[in-house]
Amino acid sequence: MKLLYPTSLALDVKSLEGYSVDLQPYDVKEPIPEEHTDASVLVTWTNSASNLSDAAKRLKNLGWIQSLAAGPNDVLGAGFDASKIKITTGSGLHDRTVAEHALGLLLNAARRFYEMRDWQLQSKWPQHLGGPQPDRPKGKFTTLRDANVLIWGYGNIAKALAPSLTLLGATVRGVARSQGVRNGVEVYGEDKLPELLPQTDALVMILPGSESTKHALNAERLKLLPNHAWVVNVGRGTSIDEEALFSALESSQIGGAALDVFDQEPLPGSSKLWKAPNCIVSPHAAGGRPQGAEALIAENLRKFIAGQDLRNII
Amino acid sequence: MKLLYPTSLALDVKSLEGYSVDLQPYDVKEPIPEEHTDASVLVTWTNSASNLSDAAKRLKNLGWIQSLAAGPNDVLGAGFDASKIKITTGSGLHDRTVAEHALGLLLNAARRFYEMRDWQLQSKWPQHLGGPQPDRPKGKFTTLRDANVLIWGYGNIAKALAPSLTLLGATVRGVARSQGVRNGVEVYGEDKLPELLPQTDALVMILPGSESTKHALNAERLKLLPNHAWVVNVGRGTSIDEEALFSALESSQIGGAALDVFDQEPLPGSSKLWKAPNCIVSPHAAGGRPQGAEALIAENLRKFIAGQDLRNII
Ligand SMILES: NC(=O)c1ccc[n+]([C@@H]2O[C@H](COP(=O)([O-])OP(=O)(O)OC[C@H]3O[C@@H](n4cnc5c(N)ncnc54)[C@H](OP(=O)(O)O)[C@@H]3O)[C@@H](O)[C@H]2O)c1
Ligand SMILES: NC(=O)c1ccc[n+]([C@@H]2O[C@H](COP(=O)([O-])OP(=O)(O)OC[C@H]3O[C@@H](n4cnc5c(N)ncnc54)[C@H](OP(=O)(O)O)[C@@H]3O)[C@@H](O)[C@H]2O)c1
Repeated sequence: MKLLYPTSLALDVKSLEGYSVDLQPYDVKEPIPEEHTDASVLVTWTNSASNLSDAAKRLKNLGWIQSLAAGPNDVLGAGFDASKIKITTGSGLHDRTVAEHALGLLLNAARRFYEMRDWQLQSKWPQHLGGPQPDRPKGKFTTLRDANVLIWGYGNIAKALAPSLTLLGATVRGVARSQGVRNGVEVYGEDKLPELLPQTDALVMILPGSESTKHALNAERLKLLPNHAWVVNVGRGTSIDEEALFSALESSQIGGAALDVFDQEPLPGSSKLWKAPNCIVSPHAAGGRPQGAEALIAENLRKFIAGQDLRNII
Repeated sequence: MKLLYPTSLALDVKSLEGYSVDLQPYDVKEPIPEEHTDASVLVTWTNSASNLSDAAKRLKNLGWIQSLAAGPNDVLGAGFDASKIKITTGSGLHDRTVAEHALGLLLNAARRFYEMRDWQLQSKWPQHLGGPQPDRPKGKFTTLRDANVLIWGYGNIAKALAPSLTLLGATVRGVARSQGVRNGVEVYGEDKLPELLPQTDALVMILPGSESTKHALNAERLKLLPNHAWVVNVGRGTSIDEEALFSALESSQIGGAALDVFDQEPLPGSSKLWKAPNCIVSPHAAGGRPQGAEALIAENLRKFIAGQDLRNII
C-alpha cells in the first residue's frame, strides 16, 4: 500500500513508520508522477486545483484522502469519486492556533492596540488610551473581564477558545445548530439570537462557509448588537454581509470589527473595510499551520488498514 | 472616626457602610477642606502632589493611608510622618488588568497585529503574514504555544498572567529576588539569568521601579537573548536601558519590544523608540483602573478599627 504525503509542510514522516506502507513525498502544485498513480492514500495540504483535478482522473487506486485543512472544500470540488473514496478533514488540527488568533484580535479590540499604532506612527502619545481610567465603563468594550462573549459557530475552535476567555473573566455563550451545554458552556440555537445579541459585548463568528451560513450576520442582526459591541470573524468571510457591516461601522452602530476572513481574499484594494472606523484587517492568518497532523494521519492509517471507521470523515 | 475617599474613581461607597465611620468624599486635586482635616483615614487615587504634601501638613489626626495604586511612591514622597501613619498599597487591585494587557501585547507581537496595521493603512494585504505557513518556525516568535516565556519580577501580576500563558501552551518560568516554586511555576534568582535568557522566546518584565531595578535589562543581558526573542515591559520603564534596547532593535539583535512603560512618560516625541523596528508603544495603559478597591478598603477598615495588622502594609 502506498501513501503520498505533501512536501508543502514539514511532516515528521519517521513517526508514520511501522505500518507496512510505502510512504512517498509529492509536490502539491504539480501533477502526481506516473510511478505514484498506484497510491491508495493521498494526504493533501494547499494543493493546487489542477493537482487535485488531475489526481482525481489518474489515481485509480485511491481509497482515502486525508486533507489537513479544516474544511474539505478544495477536495470536494476536484471530482473524486465519492462513492469509492473516503475523505477525512483536518478538523481539530487548527483549533489552538485559530483560537489564539481570535483571542489576540479580541484583546487588540479591547485594548485598542490598532489605535495606539496609528498614534505611534506619528510619534504621538495617545493620552486618552492610557493613565487612570474608569474600570469597565458602560458603553465601552475595554476588557474581557465581566464581558459577555457570544461565539456563533460553537465547534472545535470555539471549544479551544472558551477556556482562555473564561479565565480572563468573560462570560461565554455559544450559538450552534443544536442547543445544549458543551464543555460547560451554554449553547443556544439561532432562534435565540434576538435575545442574545443585545446582551453581547463581543460577538465571535466561527461559522464554516456554506450556503446556509451566507450573510448569517446581516443588517437586521447587526442592529440588535449594543453600540459598543465588537464583531470578530475567524470563520469564513461569507458569513457576514460586508456591506451591512461597513454601514454599521461607519454609523458607529457597533463598536468595531476585527476580521481575519473576507468575502473575497485577498481583500481587494477597493474594499471600504480597509478604512472603516475601528476595523481591524488580518490577512487570513489565524490558521494555516496544522498542528498534530502526524498523529491524525497515523490514527487514520491504522484504522484504514484495519477497515475501521475513520476520524473526521465527511 | 472619619474616612476620606477620593472622587477620582467611582467607588461603591454603600458597600463600605456598616462600620461606625463617617465616610466623606474629597477632590484629589484640591487641598482637603478645613472641616475634614480631622480625618483618621485617607484613601488616595491619582492625587496631585500638592494635595498630598498639603494633607501631610494639615491632617494631624491621620492614622492610616490606603493608596489604591500598586506602588506607594507618590504617598511616600509627600512628607507624611511614617512613624505615626500606617501606609497600605493597592497591590492586587491591578493584577488582572495588567495581566490582560501583557497577554495582549504578547499576542500582538506573536501575531504581528502592529505590522498588519501598517499594511492596512495603505489598503494592502500582507500576504507574508497570512495563508499557509510553517508551524512554530525556528528563529521566529509566532505563537505562545510551546514558547518559553520568562517573567522577570514574579509577583502578583505575574501570578495572574501565568495561567493564561500556560493554557495557551507556553512554558512559564519566573525570576525574582528569592527562588522557589510559586503557584506551580519555577522561579529563579537573578544569578540564573545567564542560563535562562538564551532559552527565552518572550521576556516579560514586571519589575517595580527602584534603585535596585534600574536598567536591570541592559546591553549585556539583551545580548543573551536569542535573535527572535521579544521583550514586553509592563512594570516600570526605568528597569530597561532604553538606549541599549533601541540598539538591540535597530540591529535585529532581538525580535522586538512591546512597551507599556518608559523611562520618561509621556514618551517624548524625540524618542527613537517610536520608530524603532518591531517596537510597540503602549501609553501606560495596562493598569490605571483598580478592581475590587471596596473589598480591600472594607477589609483594612475592619482591621484598622480592631487594631489588627493591615493588608498590603509597607
Ligand atoms: N481563519 C482561519 O485561518 C481558519 C482556520 C481554520 C478554520 N477556519 C474556519 O472555521 C470554521 C469552523 O471550524 P471548526 O473546526 O470550529 O468547525 P466545527 O467544529 O465543525 O464547528 C462548526 C460550528 O458551526 C456550527 N454551524 C455549522 N453550520 C451552521 C449553520 N448553518 N448555522 C449555525 N451554526 C452552524 C456548527 O453547529 P453544530 O455544532 O450544531 O453542528 C458548529 O458549532 C471552519 O469551517 C473554517 O471555515 C478558519
Ligand atoms: N503598567 C501599568 O499600568 C502598571 C500597573 C500596575 C503596576 N505596575 C508595575 O508593576 C510592578 C509589579 O507589580 P506587582 O503587583 O506584581 O508587584 P509585586 O507583587 O510586589 O511583585 C514584584 C516582583 O518583583 C520582584 N522584585 C522586586 N524588586 C526586585 C529586584 N530588585 N530584583 C529582582 N526582582 C525584584 C519581586 O521579587 P520577590 O517576589 O522575590 O520579592 C516580585 O517578584 C509595580 O511595582 C508597578 O511598578 C504597572
